[in-house]
Amino acid sequence: MCSNSIRAVAHLGCAVGLLLTGCTRSQTDLSARSGPFHRILDDQAEAWNRGDIDGFMRHYWQSDGLTFSSDGHTRRGWTKTKARYEQRYPTPERMGQLEFTDLETHLLGDNAALVLGRWHLAREPDSVGGNFTLVFERIDGQWKIIHDHTSPAPSE
Amino acid sequence: MCSNSIRAVAHLGCAVGLLLTGCTRSQTDLSARSGPFHRILDDQAEAWNRGDIDGFMRHYWQSDGLTFSSDGHTRRGWTKTKARYEQRYPTPERMGQLEFTDLETHLLGDNAALVLGRWHLAREPDSVGGNFTLVFERIDGQWKIIHDHTSPAPSE
Repeated sequence: MCSNSIRAVAHLGCAVGLLLTGCTRSQTDLSARSGPFHRILDDQAEAWNRGDIDGFMRHYWQSDGLTFSSDGHTRRGWTKTKARYEQRYPTPERMGQLEFTDLETHLLGDNAALVLGRWHLAREPDSVGGNFTLVFERIDGQWKIIHDHTSPAPSE
Repeated sequence: MCSNSIRAVAHLGCAVGLLLTGCTRSQTDLSARSGPFHRILDDQAEAWNRGDIDGFMRHYWQSDGLTFSSDGHTRRGWTKTKARYEQRYPTPERMGQLEFTDLETHLLGDNAALVLGRWHLAREPDSVGGNFTLVFERIDGQWKIIHDHTSPAPSE
């Protein structure tokens, strides 16, 4: 997973980065590496907007270890998370059109990342929105959401 | 931060763990290593319960990069986070008695961790509670909260 050679390359990259722009442990909004997360969220929004909850869910860790916090409670597991989406959004009209904005990425080592952003669901008659915290982990070479904490904004 | 020797020891520990109980990348609730986070949260609750917001805040990353999400919005920076606590909880009566429960830790490599849990503030006349997501990062050898997403539970 994390061989010494990979780590050496990472350290070399960090050393080069120091020469160019400065390189700290807390790396926020590195566009070259935040790319994968933006692409994943774009892919999720596209899946949602064609009514494809399976496509939306494929970026979540398919495990009982997945945690999803909303409304002050934490639910567990990929299957229950998917079932809750299907129950809350039974039709394309209720699903509406999803948009993610204000994404920011904070890398946590080589195999994890914190991604913050805002969500907005345009639909009639009750558009909704708020913010979210996602924790990604690289599992078997693929970035997966292992934790999602989503909140609505009262004013939206 | 992460020398090859430390990593080698970690890999050895993992190999031993495989023999004993299985060892996967996603390590949840490892009591030996989740200890520091439990201690930090205990320390935070104790500081809060003696009306010591400075003590409570010392476990947050003292940086403009700290992010704090609540009520559907994300606020930034240690100074603003502290000011908001002081504004919302101006007296010991409003601060009440804080308790953290149901803590669970998910390590994200060697220098980051995801910690979930529930919070409850016992006070008159309006006790409140909910859940939280904390992301810790080891900065200059110390575990600091770099992101907090806190939600109230409607029923509490």
